[in-house]
Amino acid sequence: MLSVEEQIRVIKRGTEEIISEEELKQKLEYSIRNNIPLRVKAGFDPTAPDLHLGHTVLIQKMKHFQDLGHHVIFLIGDFTGLIGDPTGKSETRKALTIEEVLKNAETYKEQVFKILDPAKTEIAFNSHWMGKMTSYDMIKLASSYTVARMLERDDFAKRYSSGKPISIHEFLYPLVQGYDSVALKSDVELGGTDQKFNLLVGRDLQRMNGQNPQIALTVPILEGLDGVQKMSKSLGNYVGITEKPTDMFGKIMSISDQLMFRYYLLLSDKSLEEVERIKNGVESGKIHPMDAKKDLAEEIVKRFHGYVEAKRAREWFEQVFTKKEIPDDIKLFEGKSDEKLIDIIKKLGFAPSNSEVRRLATAGAITINGEKIENVDLSLGAGEFILKVGKRNFAKLKLK
Amino acid sequence: MLSVEEQIRVIKRGTEEIISEEELKQKLEYSIRNNIPLRVKAGFDPTAPDLHLGHTVLIQKMKHFQDLGHHVIFLIGDFTGLIGDPTGKSETRKALTIEEVLKNAETYKEQVFKILDPAKTEIAFNSHWMGKMTSYDMIKLASSYTVARMLERDDFAKRYSSGKPISIHEFLYPLVQGYDSVALKSDVELGGTDQKFNLLVGRDLQRMNGQNPQIALTVPILEGLDGVQKMSKSLGNYVGITEKPTDMFGKIMSISDQLMFRYYLLLSDKSLEEVERIKNGVESGKIHPMDAKKDLAEEIVKRFHGYVEAKRAREWFEQVFTKKEIPDDIKLFEGKSDEKLIDIIKKLGFAPSNSEVRRLATAGAITINGEKIENVDLSLGAGEFILKVGKRNFAKLKLK
Repeated sequence: MLSVEEQIRVIKRGTEEIISEEELKQKLEYSIRNNIPLRVKAGFDPTAPDLHLGHTVLIQKMKHFQDLGHHVIFLIGDFTGLIGDPTGKSETRKALTIEEVLKNAETYKEQVFKILDPAKTEIAFNSHWMGKMTSYDMIKLASSYTVARMLERDDFAKRYSSGKPISIHEFLYPLVQGYDSVALKSDVELGGTDQKFNLLVGRDLQRMNGQNPQIALTVPILEGLDGVQKMSKSLGNYVGITEKPTDMFGKIMSISDQLMFRYYLLLSDKSLEEVERIKNGVESGKIHPMDAKKDLAEEIVKRFHGYVEAKRAREWFEQVFTKKEIPDDIKLFEGKSDEKLIDIIKKLGFAPSNSEVRRLATAGAITINGEKIENVDLSLGAGEFILKVGKRNFAKLKLK
Repeated sequence: MLSVEEQIRVIKRGTEEIISEEELKQKLEYSIRNNIPLRVKAGFDPTAPDLHLGHTVLIQKMKHFQDLGHHVIFLIGDFTGLIGDPTGKSETRKALTIEEVLKNAETYKEQVFKILDPAKTEIAFNSHWMGKMTSYDMIKLASSYTVARMLERDDFAKRYSSGKPISIHEFLYPLVQGYDSVALKSDVELGGTDQKFNLLVGRDLQRMNGQNPQIALTVPILEGLDGVQKMSKSLGNYVGITEKPTDMFGKIMSISDQLMFRYYLLLSDKSLEEVERIKNGVESGKIHPMDAKKDLAEEIVKRFHGYVEAKRAREWFEQVFTKKEIPDDIKLFEGKSDEKLIDIIKKLGFAPSNSEVRRLATAGAITINGEKIENVDLSLGAGEFILKVGKRNFAKLKLK
């Protein structure tokens, strides 16, 4: 095992806040002295297993702990998922069936085991202990916290002061999450910065239950491709981890040099020393930023699609961009993410009619990012794409 | 069955508020038309089965409904009693065992069946349905109300604004009480004015559960013997319903004429017409207020101790007060409720030493309100008493 200082260095990489670092050091000392790995928990919502790179910042942090030899617990919050939002106000929080939860869990596993080592990862479902709780137990749990304290949570405070309703059960959910830490005897809980309050509830409940309180470690919310807003599906500035290799590669190549180093810090498996070396190389002019970006894109594509696909995506990119297969004066098309490809092609003037577009598609003469498209009635979604129609018609599509 | 108007007249006697009278009329009409009695619920805390007259205002109102032919449910809130106050802050809310709850329930029955007809009274325990609830059900129940709405309750509002802690489980208790109305399908819930909010929660929850909402009927808080503050044990201005006949009689005789009519309204079984007749009689000088008060005292003593004891208490009172067995210049002793009788006797100068007091007691020469006292090391508690030592030594004790 690495020394406390060496572990701290890895753990602190890209973290937002650690409460507290002093306690973390003590836990690490104890762990090293007794050769007992720390129990590191991170909770996931079972409703949305379709991950993008933003979610993987947290999973990368789990991996850091795993690589350091600690015991990582991937907790699926299915208890609350099975309840959903009983007020029926929130569409995204409608109650799931047990089948849906299990299916989502499978999808999660498929996705996160591209980062985490399945053999060393514990998958837990909080319905296992929460489902056994009686109404008495729930009332006792509710008694551990005061209304005033709960209203200190940022989003509750804002909603309360602006007169937006907060259902009483919403006060119970942070307590459930906190109790998960008691049930799992976690030493560390990881979460995004928006989870800070809930992680601290876990500390309090552990203390009340005679446990040594967990370390609350928050990771930043990843900026999207625009470098400004947080990466999110609804903003269209995301890279989904199941996206096609060429799309993933192309999207990552579109980010700014500054954002590239942020992504290196938060998403790459490269050591801090190596990241530092690349940064210095780019700044001193020894490394071309485009090459550094290609390396990053290749590493991330490789993580989700493997070595061969990553190489192919890089080759494709170099062919169409670096090696100038496509002309410098490529047409730029900006439009909406739900616009149909057939309409875009007509607007660009690459074909005069629907029937001509369809004929070209059938002939295999239409490609997006180098892949043939047969169904031109689809829309591509948000992102940047290279469209080729026939032999000479190129366009860069920016769809939002 | 009486007509709607006649029933309303009985029901409204001494009530504080009915929400709403219009709905109550509709329910009564339906009840009469279909010959289905209304289901009338009142909840009682299982921790304090030692009732005083203040508590019986509510039970008298239950009796009114019972006399009108409706179905009365005496609900013991044992579910919350079994939990108590999990924060451990409140001594009076410490968790009870099932044995204690059952024992308290027996005491309750003994006491309330002096007023209600046992054959026509349903005794219910809310643990029967609440105990079966899972943690899921409790979260769903919690989702029915908002934090803002709960903070509208007077005592919560005051505590919140003054920075006094409110535990989250305290928000669940009104929902449990409200859900009791759903489980019991109650048509009417009775309570003190301090229960108004909780009764309205019951209405809301019934509505949400597709039931016709209950009528919320509140009765006033009874003034104590001083006629100013509410009757309460801690204030010492109460008449316990298990007190001795002569004590009970004497205490009631000590109230003001004005308070006597309030007690007639809220505690007597006499009809409104009769109460009106007595009031007019006193005002016009046809009835001596002392006689009206003796009738009231006798009625109340009779309720809890039977006809014979009530007559005896009246005779005792008339003997010592009205017929002047005791001298007009009776000594007045004012002291504390926990002062020992032996010390009071010495202070009054009725005996020179402890041993002399004990000798008199053994000889049966010491009486309190006409009953012989053997153990003079006891204190009498708060109230007014007539002490007689030997043949000629009388004193009126006012103990607080």
